Amino acid sequence: MTETVIDWERETRTGVAEAMLCEGKSAAQIAAILGDCGGRRLFLTRLGPEVRSSLPATIQDALDYDELSRTAVFGPAIAAARAGAGIVCAGTSDLQVAREAARTMAFHGYAAPIIADVGVAGLWRLMRRLDEVRGFSVLIAVAGMEGALFSVLAGLVEAPIIAVPRAVGYGVGADGHAALTTALATCTPGVVTVNIDNGFGAACAAIKILRASQRTPLADDAD
Amino acid sequence: MTETVIDWERETRTGVAEAMLCEGKSAAQIAAILGDCGGRRLFLTRLGPEVRSSLPATIQDALDYDELSRTAVFGPAIAAARAGAGIVCAGTSDLQVAREAARTMAFHGYAAPIIADVGVAGLWRLMRRLDEVRGFSVLIAVAGMEGALFSVLAGLVEAPIIAVPRAVGYGVGADGHAALTTALATCTPGVVTVNIDNGFGAACAAIKILRASQRTPLADDAD
Amino acid sequence: MTETVIDWERETRTGVAEAMLCEGKSAAQIAAILGDCGGRRLFLTRLGPEVRSSLPATIQDALDYDELSRTAVFGPAIAAARAGAGIVCAGTSDLQVAREAARTMAFHGYAAPIIADVGVAGLWRLMRRLDEVRGFSVLIAVAGMEGALFSVLAGLVEAPIIAVPRAVGYGVGADGHAALTTALATCTPGVVTVNIDNGFGAACAAIKILRASQRTPLADDAD
Amino acid sequence: MTETVIDWERETRTGVAEAMLCEGKSAAQIAAILGDCGGRRLFLTRLGPEVRSSLPATIQDALDYDELSRTAVFGPAIAAARAGAGIVCAGTSDLQVAREAARTMAFHGYAAPIIADVGVAGLWRLMRRLDEVRGFSVLIAVAGMEGALFSVLAGLVEAPIIAVPRAVGYGVGADGHAALTTALATCTPGVVTVNIDNGFGAACAAIKILRASQRTPLADDAD
Amino acid sequence: MTETVIDWERETRTGVAEAMLCEGKSAAQIAAILGDCGGRRLFLTRLGPEVRSSLPATIQDALDYDELSRTAVFGPAIAAARAGAGIVCAGTSDLQVAREAARTMAFHGYAAPIIADVGVAGLWRLMRRLDEVRGFSVLIAVAGMEGALFSVLAGLVEAPIIAVPRAVGYGVGADGHAALTTALATCTPGVVTVNIDNGFGAACAAIKILRASQRTPLADDAD
Amino acid sequence: MTETVIDWERETRTGVAEAMLCEGKSAAQIAAILGDCGGRRLFLTRLGPEVRSSLPATIQDALDYDELSRTAVFGPAIAAARAGAGIVCAGTSDLQVAREAARTMAFHGYAAPIIADVGVAGLWRLMRRLDEVRGFSVLIAVAGMEGALFSVLAGLVEAPIIAVPRAVGYGVGADGHAALTTALATCTPGVVTVNIDNGFGAACAAIKILRASQRTPLADDAD
Amino acid sequence: MTETVIDWERETRTGVAEAMLCEGKSAAQIAAILGDCGGRRLFLTRLGPEVRSSLPATIQDALDYDELSRTAVFGPAIAAARAGAGIVCAGTSDLQVAREAARTMAFHGYAAPIIADVGVAGLWRLMRRLDEVRGFSVLIAVAGMEGALFSVLAGLVEAPIIAVPRAVGYGVGADGHAALTTALATCTPGVVTVNIDNGFGAACAAIKILRASQRTPLADDAD
Amino acid sequence: MTETVIDWERETRTGVAEAMLCEGKSAAQIAAILGDCGGRRLFLTRLGPEVRSSLPATIQDALDYDELSRTAVFGPAIAAARAGAGIVCAGTSDLQVAREAARTMAFHGYAAPIIADVGVAGLWRLMRRLDEVRGFSVLIAVAGMEGALFSVLAGLVEAPIIAVPRAVGYGVGADGHAALTTALATCTPGVVTVNIDNGFGAACAAIKILRASQRTPLADDAD
Repeated sequence: MTETVIDWERETRTGVAEAMLCEGKSAAQIAAILGDCGGRRLFLTRLGPEVRSSLPATIQDALDYDELSRTAVFGPAIAAARAGAGIVCAGTSDLQVAREAARTMAFHGYAAPIIADVGVAGLWRLMRRLDEVRGFSVLIAVAGMEGALFSVLAGLVEAPIIAVPRAVGYGVGADGHAALTTALATCTPGVVTVNIDNGFGAACAAIKILRASQRTPLADDAD
Repeated sequence: MTETVIDWERETRTGVAEAMLCEGKSAAQIAAILGDCGGRRLFLTRLGPEVRSSLPATIQDALDYDELSRTAVFGPAIAAARAGAGIVCAGTSDLQVAREAARTMAFHGYAAPIIADVGVAGLWRLMRRLDEVRGFSVLIAVAGMEGALFSVLAGLVEAPIIAVPRAVGYGVGADGHAALTTALATCTPGVVTVNIDNGFGAACAAIKILRASQRTPLADDAD
Repeated sequence: MTETVIDWERETRTGVAEAMLCEGKSAAQIAAILGDCGGRRLFLTRLGPEVRSSLPATIQDALDYDELSRTAVFGPAIAAARAGAGIVCAGTSDLQVAREAARTMAFHGYAAPIIADVGVAGLWRLMRRLDEVRGFSVLIAVAGMEGALFSVLAGLVEAPIIAVPRAVGYGVGADGHAALTTALATCTPGVVTVNIDNGFGAACAAIKILRASQRTPLADDAD
Repeated sequence: MTETVIDWERETRTGVAEAMLCEGKSAAQIAAILGDCGGRRLFLTRLGPEVRSSLPATIQDALDYDELSRTAVFGPAIAAARAGAGIVCAGTSDLQVAREAARTMAFHGYAAPIIADVGVAGLWRLMRRLDEVRGFSVLIAVAGMEGALFSVLAGLVEAPIIAVPRAVGYGVGADGHAALTTALATCTPGVVTVNIDNGFGAACAAIKILRASQRTPLADDAD
Repeated sequence: MTETVIDWERETRTGVAEAMLCEGKSAAQIAAILGDCGGRRLFLTRLGPEVRSSLPATIQDALDYDELSRTAVFGPAIAAARAGAGIVCAGTSDLQVAREAARTMAFHGYAAPIIADVGVAGLWRLMRRLDEVRGFSVLIAVAGMEGALFSVLAGLVEAPIIAVPRAVGYGVGADGHAALTTALATCTPGVVTVNIDNGFGAACAAIKILRASQRTPLADDAD
Repeated sequence: MTETVIDWERETRTGVAEAMLCEGKSAAQIAAILGDCGGRRLFLTRLGPEVRSSLPATIQDALDYDELSRTAVFGPAIAAARAGAGIVCAGTSDLQVAREAARTMAFHGYAAPIIADVGVAGLWRLMRRLDEVRGFSVLIAVAGMEGALFSVLAGLVEAPIIAVPRAVGYGVGADGHAALTTALATCTPGVVTVNIDNGFGAACAAIKILRASQRTPLADDAD
Repeated sequence: MTETVIDWERETRTGVAEAMLCEGKSAAQIAAILGDCGGRRLFLTRLGPEVRSSLPATIQDALDYDELSRTAVFGPAIAAARAGAGIVCAGTSDLQVAREAARTMAFHGYAAPIIADVGVAGLWRLMRRLDEVRGFSVLIAVAGMEGALFSVLAGLVEAPIIAVPRAVGYGVGADGHAALTTALATCTPGVVTVNIDNGFGAACAAIKILRASQRTPLADDAD
Repeated sequence: MTETVIDWERETRTGVAEAMLCEGKSAAQIAAILGDCGGRRLFLTRLGPEVRSSLPATIQDALDYDELSRTAVFGPAIAAARAGAGIVCAGTSDLQVAREAARTMAFHGYAAPIIADVGVAGLWRLMRRLDEVRGFSVLIAVAGMEGALFSVLAGLVEAPIIAVPRAVGYGVGADGHAALTTALATCTPGVVTVNIDNGFGAACAAIKILRASQRTPLADDAD
């Protein structure tokens, strides 16, 4: 038994399910919450390997764990049958957050491919994959350091861009604020942002956007 | 003649047209740019009343100007025939930015109604309009001070929330950072944010989202 | 013997007793101070488990230690016979600070129940416990991330709200400043705040408020 | 008619009435809101003299305006019959915020005397009035620059201290953050704080505290 | 006579002449300093039009003043006979700082053309002028808002990039820190930066670089 | 041999000897520098116990090490024969920095007693030692959290106060900025400050002040 | 009559007289305070020319006003008979704060000459006046922008350096924080600092230091 | 195989080769990237000793590793035959970043000598090596704490100064921002800066500058 009250109705109400942020919770608290799930599926974020290995073995077995993204799925997997967001990364160290986003989408049944290492220092890397990138109706862009990718990308595509600034770099870039302010002060309209390193939140917003498209009454004069 | 190079192809490329940010430009610069438009429509943001009244009379006449939002449309209006975002405001002083968003959407042909004064200090104001709010497939939420509306709203609706933090308040809330950090650190997934007071950018993102819904291949198993 | 000078008269002078902040003190310093207490009771905050286990065994035995809140009572317990503040928590990781507040109140003889996990992402969790929450004459609210609970709660109850922002979250929310600025810039009057993670200080203020009610001359025309 | 929705039920629900923050509203908006009041009383804060003199004459006549505090009462005054908070000021330039607090209390029927110019640079000024200060069950302390008064005062009295940091001073003290961090990081427990220059909020919290004392069940063993 | 001591030897010692920063000086102080010049040339920065028009008429006549850049040359002009830096601007409101840089170079005898309005929101604007941009051995890049131009440009050219972040924009971009952190945290090596809006300093650094090339012993195996 | 160049002439030139800041240097670098001293005395600051125990045994033996202050004297001790500054501490965790200051003074031949635990939460602790404190011609005050001691002390004594803000506390007080801004924005003139935790620098300034008194020509009309 | 309580005993208690900070006070408040002086002398700081010219004529006549430093002496002047601090300035725009310091010292009877325009960009300007600078037993150094003068000066002289960072410059230097952090993080021991632009406070500290030298028991073995 | 896309064309396009930032990458990721190099040379920065020792032995053997600077060269060394930048250091703890810069230059074939420990606290240390310093056509200056060296150096030499602020010191200097703001707000024109601790970036900029000198058309009237 636990004092935690999972908001099981959230998926019905908002389109995305409540997830458990494991950072700041003990293994005992996590185990208690999972023990109260009663057969329902739950997504876990920021589950460090050391906390995970302190969980009871039966619970560890019940988790589909991914160490790079520190995420886990409790309960059965479902097919990622719907077309999800495209996830664009500036560099190799952005992959862990990109994967958090991709796994969040998969938990909700969306396939979200990652287009890696297309940072603007070598613009040709983005340009040669532009057709692929333009195929998505929503894009999540993950970038640290100065985050210039957000602005460049938004000027090239029709899809809305959900920026995920990364706490990658050093000096003024170390904590992710340089990339965050780029996403906010961008000269290219059509960029929105979530918190630093919040791949989970970006995926939730992308899911809401994709779901919106199925609820939108078709406009008469849309091009 | 002007050195400014309007990116006329932007609407085709990205779905939203380039606009002119008038803040930081002189009346002479603005007039020169408009003189180069050659019959094309252009949207103007942050056009202060004093700068506007310094423009040549013929240009003033050609502008559909709105003082509250400091926006203007150069060129013919088009019908706002498509269903746009719902724009939710916490308080009266958020209206000017809400209107900037609404006018941006109208310029692109979208109708975007404003639901005013539903701040969380009196929660019943939001609750009694919840059905109306739930009717939109995208929501823009405008709030200053601490911006708690973003989190509460996102927990109640299916639509993605585009937060616009407002530089309204005093002390730690005066510059909009308290509302901005609420949008970023929100406990409710599904909130994305744009820069402080950036109603224009929020509308551009909403338009991209609405357009995405018309390009999205219908998923086979969507609920 | 120690150079530390405990302010034993503080409880008489101000209504709350001096406590020992253990963070930044060595086990030797803590032991020396406790050795000088001469039979008087003392409350200890931020006593980490590793420092505690470095204390002499006789002192460890004399401490009523609570690991979650890292607090200890030195000397005999007293009955929590008076009605204290209600302590409202947004999430599971707020419990450790909530418990610091509850144990501070208990040390002074006040019972302070914790209402856990009523964060605003699922507003129904707060609403279903509203009657209970409205029964307290003072409320301590503990919340991290963006701290929207402070504003929502204050709009629903008569009691003054003492906010305790929590250093819980990541990115712009990691150090507690997002929750702190929410408490300060709140649109709902009647919220006051203490320092980030300062459950002890919130409880001291609540005790002063509760004591004030016993000293207040009854107003003639109070409703 | 106005889009503003005054939360008339707030006083019943929370003990303090909604007030109108005039900063950021035009004279036209303020007049419209007052025109919708229908005989009910309303308190106005941050009403600058220039905006006030732009209001219609009939409305100006209906306002009890105080220029120092930039507050106004719309509707009939009521007697300040109940004992309110004591308001302690560090210096002369703190008077305008102290007055905002006092006028807020008076609007709600509480008398709140101001004890001026007792800053700690000359400690004797506070000491000679200590008996008077100790007579209040709640204290509001207003101080700019470094705000050391908050800590000193809290160590000398039984009443809870509501700190109001002031944006008074220059350099690192100019925007009120030095005084605010003093209130938050104080070494003396029992201090709570509101936003910089928020005399209104401090008074609302004080009223909630005073009302609590009339609702509190008397504890059996109170000293 | 004035207490100011112009460092006339600076040009010989460091390659760039001392200039007078007029901001923070009164018209009287400026006139006194110019009166002491004794026929020597002096460059003036940040000379606002109102201060300039308060100068004695004889001094106004002796100044070659440019209002857009707020710079003036005191004394005879010299031919801009040497090839200077290329100055690349993101937008129209960057022109005033670009001009400060160009006029600083002209004062020292260097011609520095401005390539305007090549911001990355419409990447084609930069691409169509890339050959021209690649012709310079040193580039000064002026950009406000998020400053993504710095990173993109540095990835495309051989020349070193001297970034000049601009205090242009609003919200988190208003004071130039978003563009500054982009220049510092850039993912593209070869960018260096000067202070926000410091077109003068960027030009001085460019002059030093250009002069270095005339002093550098030719390397034996340079490609 | 080392690339480090000790500024041995500094004591003659400025009155205080160069010291070695050990933080950021390896044991090997420290040993090399000490090996180059050639019989001269050197003071070491911020020498952590683990680095110290990595030094060669002969060097460890040659050091008079104090673990609390992390300082060491290399070379012979000299008598602390001159009257130095009084060092006043707010709390127990300020002792380590107070000791750094006292040991710096002792290295230069000055005796500097520590008056501990006189924080303003219990003002009587300072008051009962006021005569003692007033006996010093220079005072160093060490305080963390909000640092209110600086302002109170300066209002009570003739001596100049050198404030040393301490990185002690949590939340907004954790990094010492709250205490630092108190020292800077103090309402009591006569306070000067050094960097956070810089007991060494405070002692150096105190030594310069004490030396100044021996160089000052006696004023004719001094009171 | 006024509520302000001048701390007339401060000079006896601390060696420096209370002064009136006029910023944030109305002309009426200033006049009332001066009217209560009863023949005693008072020093006024930050008295802007427009407030001054709103004072009653009799009071204006009674003031010895200096517009550059915005200071005034109320009451008779006294001879500046004692040797005061040397005041060293980096540039012309530092003169106003240097003069505030010099006038504060003069009010207390100390002569404090200003050594102007010796900034480190042209080091020879400082070097040629080094003998003069070395003649003072206390130095006040006033510098804006990056404040490098503080570190260089302290490495060259025996006197303690009281740094006054100036809010002079633009970009990251505009508000004086760059110069302030230089004073705090200086690599040269013996620098202490006061708040940005606080020439008054620097002079008060210098006076306390100079007075200390007359109270210091002569050490037996001073060099 | 790895998803990382090395930008091998960067050296041709921009004059400096892409390098691998190892911080934030796992040993497995680094090994995979090196395995994809196909005989090409690669420079590695921020390769901590613990990550390095987790690399496969064959890769460790193929690396020329330098622990002080945490850099490695993968592939054959080339002769440092060209004259590179002079690297000037304020203190001993700046050597690790100076070495990162020197090794970056060496990788590209430039010899870059280090002039160590010439901080401004003892100005003679810089002065006695001034002729040597003046011999370079480009200078990299590395300094932590307050970074005053940048301003002093730039006033004495003809070469452009690339400042590298160091995260060395404590309190306000600990994170390198004090040195960074000195580089930006410097009173001496001709200083440009890179990010805190970015020795690699400074070297890349220096290489671009040196290469520019070989591409610059000789000006007709250069002195």
